[in-house]
Amino acid sequence: MTDIAKGLEGVLFTESKLTFINGTEGILTHLGIPIQEWAENSTFEELSFALLHARLPNAAELAQFDADLRANRALPEKLVEEIATFPKHAHPMQTLRTAVSYLALFDPQAEDTTPEGRYAISLRLIAQMSTIIAASARTREGQPIVAPRMDLTHAANFLYMLTGKEPTPEQARLFDIALVLHADHGMNASTFTAIATSSTLSDTYSCIVSAIGALKGPLHGGANEAVMDMLDEVGTPDKAAEYIGGKLDRKEKIMGVGHRVYKYFDPRSRVLRDYAEHVANKEGKSTYYQILETIEKTVVERIGSKGIYPNVDFYSGTVYSDLGIRKEYFTPIFALARISGWCASVNEYTKDNRLLRPDAVYTGATDAHYVKLQDR
Amino acid sequence: MTDIAKGLEGVLFTESKLTFINGTEGILTHLGIPIQEWAENSTFEELSFALLHARLPNAAELAQFDADLRANRALPEKLVEEIATFPKHAHPMQTLRTAVSYLALFDPQAEDTTPEGRYAISLRLIAQMSTIIAASARTREGQPIVAPRMDLTHAANFLYMLTGKEPTPEQARLFDIALVLHADHGMNASTFTAIATSSTLSDTYSCIVSAIGALKGPLHGGANEAVMDMLDEVGTPDKAAEYIGGKLDRKEKIMGVGHRVYKYFDPRSRVLRDYAEHVANKEGKSTYYQILETIEKTVVERIGSKGIYPNVDFYSGTVYSDLGIRKEYFTPIFALARISGWCASVNEYTKDNRLLRPDAVYTGATDAHYVKLQDR
Repeated sequence: MTDIAKGLEGVLFTESKLTFINGTEGILTHLGIPIQEWAENSTFEELSFALLHARLPNAAELAQFDADLRANRALPEKLVEEIATFPKHAHPMQTLRTAVSYLALFDPQAEDTTPEGRYAISLRLIAQMSTIIAASARTREGQPIVAPRMDLTHAANFLYMLTGKEPTPEQARLFDIALVLHADHGMNASTFTAIATSSTLSDTYSCIVSAIGALKGPLHGGANEAVMDMLDEVGTPDKAAEYIGGKLDRKEKIMGVGHRVYKYFDPRSRVLRDYAEHVANKEGKSTYYQILETIEKTVVERIGSKGIYPNVDFYSGTVYSDLGIRKEYFTPIFALARISGWCASVNEYTKDNRLLRPDAVYTGATDAHYVKLQDR
Repeated sequence: MTDIAKGLEGVLFTESKLTFINGTEGILTHLGIPIQEWAENSTFEELSFALLHARLPNAAELAQFDADLRANRALPEKLVEEIATFPKHAHPMQTLRTAVSYLALFDPQAEDTTPEGRYAISLRLIAQMSTIIAASARTREGQPIVAPRMDLTHAANFLYMLTGKEPTPEQARLFDIALVLHADHGMNASTFTAIATSSTLSDTYSCIVSAIGALKGPLHGGANEAVMDMLDEVGTPDKAAEYIGGKLDRKEKIMGVGHRVYKYFDPRSRVLRDYAEHVANKEGKSTYYQILETIEKTVVERIGSKGIYPNVDFYSGTVYSDLGIRKEYFTPIFALARISGWCASVNEYTKDNRLLRPDAVYTGATDAHYVKLQDR
């Protein structure tokens, strides 16, 4: 019998210099630097440069990269008009996928698959994803679209376009940290889908559109929204212990805990929990935080020994919720961050490209023949 | 040193009952039935049913399926208006990807990922791809969009919408055979990309949009267009032997020959060559056919022993060209056929789903630390 690598688990298909994950020890690094150091010291702009170039920028390079991102925030006027007419009931990831696909039609460089072309498109996409997501959300909420501002950071400008109000420095910094934590994560399903698309030497827009489609699935990008659903279902902190105990007794899946790769604490969840604790110490424990605290404690005690621990999705929804963001936009915000990892991974893979073409074990009929319709 | 399965070649990741390929003997079957028998006896409608259901339909089922396809040909009026305003310079696969993504916004069932939901969306997509591709091509050529007709077969209606003229029965049948030959081909890169997207349990539109993006690449869907470029470059039959001999001497890639899977004649290329011969016997050998004949003979003699033979792309462009179709639309027509294989594969995979998450060998820096900007 032939071995099937279900889910391609454990299959190594390429080399990468970008991200390292040690799931049993809960380690995540970009360019060898631990995610905690990125979160503490860096910005989404800097990490995006670092992923695209596989090195840290110097001060002049970072200033230029940041200026280029700011200069590319605006969308073609026709696309803004389109977004304003998108049906309101549509799923925010369906509209995001459509708008990014549409953006390609206005880019005269869209078909440029040289490394320089892919880099230029990546930079614009990182800038423009933000504007697309905010504009689509505003449309969906029945509010007028807010044009980007050049004087704000990437994180602050997004919150400004989304809410129509300039965020506080603390809010902007917190959102920036969330973007840093989500910017790349090795060969996750959406990055892998982007690479599968790029492996035919297709254009960069096609790769990113594919990745958005993959991220949309509830097994990938939808998880932090599902965590919020769970917290709303629990309702009040005093019911958390019984709720989670019952789930564990019935061996039901608990959203935001367990991960294909991590068999210990997801280090990104620790950064977000530290933030949540910081807020709790300053302003008192929110309902969500108290519920999360109880669930985490129960999960770690009862099934931590099986390698099931809270992952990044466990806390990120609460952070976004604290920033006043509705849960429908959590997955688009995941895309807002992961765009850098997608682009960097596509650019890295296509420099030493190999068409992806695995195989399936055939289990169907053999030696069959076509039977004429009247004889069936 | 860890083994890397580059291009995932030889990696088995799932089971499938749909398509079997034996590359060394040049065998391709769907449901165990050789592709030659499908081409000779069946239709695209019937093969689409067979792939979606993993069995042949009876007469009543086929009639119903065909009626359902016909009933779903029309697009939402808003989408037709959109397509009519797509920028003319845009790549036909960029517009196809965008229009299919856009279609999801009008489908109230778009988020239905039950087997029944995926089946219903698949059926509509098979019908509507045809209308989208024809409408986009008409727009691009500066011609008014032609509405679908209910009284024609799938193949005949497409040619009618594309050209504005009802095809002859011979033309419709020939195009139908081309669709049958391209409807499915195992775990090719676009089908695999569709599955990668579906593995997060994302919706069917996202899967198909991803597949369109992957098919767009020159290593996949673009090959028959490249063959036509080669034939145009050769110019006249008397120059073919020298042209191809020079290419082989210089070990340059020849478009339309060689295949990752086939190390013998691609059986689909034999069906199309038989057609081309049939036409040549009736109407005399066309310039394209004479050039193809010389190239095939030279390639088989000189490098056939290395497992390099003409593949399906070698002849399909000439067939489409004979039907008066410009080469810019060859890849969208590939999508028009492969949509059935994409949908059937996604529906099959998601019934026993497993998230695709392979891994990369990390070759970057280790034990690095964040260096403050002023210290770089």
